[in-house]
Amino acid sequence: MKTRAAVAWKAGEPLTVEEVDLEGPKSGEVLVEIKATGICHTDYYTLSGADPEGLFPTILGHEGAGIVVDVGPNVKSLRKGDHVIPLYTPECRECKFCLSQKTNLCQAIRSTQGRGLMPDSTSRFSIDGKPLFHYMGTSTFSNYTVAPEIALAKIREDAPFDKVCYIGCGVTTGLGAVIYTAKVEAGANVAVFGLGGIGLNVIQGARMVGADKIIGIDINPEREAMARIFGMTHFINPNDVPNIVDAVVQLTDGGADYSFECIGNTKVMRQALECTHKGWGRSIIIGVAEAGAEISTRPFQLVTGRKWEGSAFGGARGRTDVPKIVDWYMEGKIDIDSLITHTLPLDKINDGFQLMKSGESIRSVVIY
Amino acid sequence: MKTRAAVAWKAGEPLTVEEVDLEGPKSGEVLVEIKATGICHTDYYTLSGADPEGLFPTILGHEGAGIVVDVGPNVKSLRKGDHVIPLYTPECRECKFCLSQKTNLCQAIRSTQGRGLMPDSTSRFSIDGKPLFHYMGTSTFSNYTVAPEIALAKIREDAPFDKVCYIGCGVTTGLGAVIYTAKVEAGANVAVFGLGGIGLNVIQGARMVGADKIIGIDINPEREAMARIFGMTHFINPNDVPNIVDAVVQLTDGGADYSFECIGNTKVMRQALECTHKGWGRSIIIGVAEAGAEISTRPFQLVTGRKWEGSAFGGARGRTDVPKIVDWYMEGKIDIDSLITHTLPLDKINDGFQLMKSGESIRSVVIY
Repeated sequence: MKTRAAVAWKAGEPLTVEEVDLEGPKSGEVLVEIKATGICHTDYYTLSGADPEGLFPTILGHEGAGIVVDVGPNVKSLRKGDHVIPLYTPECRECKFCLSQKTNLCQAIRSTQGRGLMPDSTSRFSIDGKPLFHYMGTSTFSNYTVAPEIALAKIREDAPFDKVCYIGCGVTTGLGAVIYTAKVEAGANVAVFGLGGIGLNVIQGARMVGADKIIGIDINPEREAMARIFGMTHFINPNDVPNIVDAVVQLTDGGADYSFECIGNTKVMRQALECTHKGWGRSIIIGVAEAGAEISTRPFQLVTGRKWEGSAFGGARGRTDVPKIVDWYMEGKIDIDSLITHTLPLDKINDGFQLMKSGESIRSVVIY
Repeated sequence: MKTRAAVAWKAGEPLTVEEVDLEGPKSGEVLVEIKATGICHTDYYTLSGADPEGLFPTILGHEGAGIVVDVGPNVKSLRKGDHVIPLYTPECRECKFCLSQKTNLCQAIRSTQGRGLMPDSTSRFSIDGKPLFHYMGTSTFSNYTVAPEIALAKIREDAPFDKVCYIGCGVTTGLGAVIYTAKVEAGANVAVFGLGGIGLNVIQGARMVGADKIIGIDINPEREAMARIFGMTHFINPNDVPNIVDAVVQLTDGGADYSFECIGNTKVMRQALECTHKGWGRSIIIGVAEAGAEISTRPFQLVTGRKWEGSAFGGARGRTDVPKIVDWYMEGKIDIDSLITHTLPLDKINDGFQLMKSGESIRSVVIY
């Protein structure tokens, strides 16, 4: 079949919208009509050429929502008409990682996904007979895409695609880091470094679970207002205090119980660790640092009880937890609408990248 | 009263045994006749002058066992004749830290203890009218010592002092890191970096809880035999393999579930983290690094599910857990006898330091 898709031909160049050939789903695969997709920093990171694992030409996009239009052989859990969110972190429920019950990092299709291919080591996308790489196993910058069954979360049918697509990455990454990775408890004090989209979702996760102080930290004072709406109780601009670590420690009578780094800056990661409470503070790294950058601290910070951890896709198991987050949105427990500041058609997708780079948008969503 | 004690007059000089004046216990304090005390690297670290918080003149020693001979006013849980182990990490059961149920790092008397004083900010020890500093709140290199009630664990009376004194630091630090800090589960794979006294206690802790592979790592091949007796299942000399991280990963089909750094070397701490399993590996720092040294790694190690943590006094609550460890020893669940390689009288305490420095002893114990 043919589909309209935004093709990334090479690093650093704008996408172009093309008619692309899409092969139907093979065994264990599903054909999905994408109805909406967010534009995420990770797409930009790969497009920029900074991602050492980036492959071109490819169809980017990993934050989508859509409807199943066809299933390949041996697909058991999905059928035509099901509403789904593609998962760049799949959930096979059979590999060592899924069965460990300790991580969401299913490895069932990792090697082929990392090579831009479906599990049989081939691509479904091509143009003029030349294959295009898949991206993160999702390639949602295409009106139709193919994904493995284990990489699709079935969601309720009354959820609006142009909102819940954001659960495919940003919402889950922030909210999940609080709920699934850190398991923040009611009454805890939380420090959130960086008040972009991820930080705002961390904040609303902390509010949802009943955190006490929710301290937002950002050098951009314009981000304070929105963060307060999402549940931030205290705001600190690091430029306004002599030492951000001391400021958090003083505000929390000894340190935050949990901190979250939502920027990808290794110096901030150290601050986030060191501002947590002696004895039990846990610092969760969410942000993706530039290739080669390292974190460091004195080991005394850990020996005196702080823990340094990380979170990917919010620690959420895609097929199990993503549908619950959709429910929470539909029940009004979390706000997504306010975060989707721009919508645009596929033809304008490069404008969406510009809005993100300029900081003008929190999230831009492409609606097909 | 008078007591014989080994006085550390200044950094870098041998101890001298003296008749020292010891004031009786004040409110909340207890007079203890020390019957035996281990000589630990931390005593040497302070004596050497490398400890930036070291105070002189002082009476060192923090790994003792003895009998209560008198109690001050308001002491409720101990009486004359009780057998006790002094605790450099006390357990008040009333401070924010104790009540958190998340840490053993009771802070009730931290500031005075750090200043070498009893909780009323004075010393009980003096010589010729000049005060001597207490050390770690315990000062067990003295035949009689005074300690706060909250810094004494009451133990069973049939336990031999010259063995269970080692539970006052080394045994608990290693065993506890496995049992209380990491909570290693049966079937887990464990990597232990450094096979000195702490490492051997980590190994027997891992055996006690039913770990599967227990991998010992040391550049000294002479340490292999004893470690095998304590439960080590595999030995790797880092000098015999191209890359110690890869060697552990291969041996464990992806990485150790838990690793323990028992040396105090920040480069080894990084190896210990990076050899743990993607998704859930936890690396526990036990060793004390030199002042100013820093640990570092790529944040990707944490974002992909590894956790970097530390342990002090094995995460054990002194008054609650130390008596249990004494029971385990008396029940034969753990071996202490083999680790106490030398005993000597107080007059020979400097020989004990030499045995430790030369690596000839695992643990030397002074018997009064």
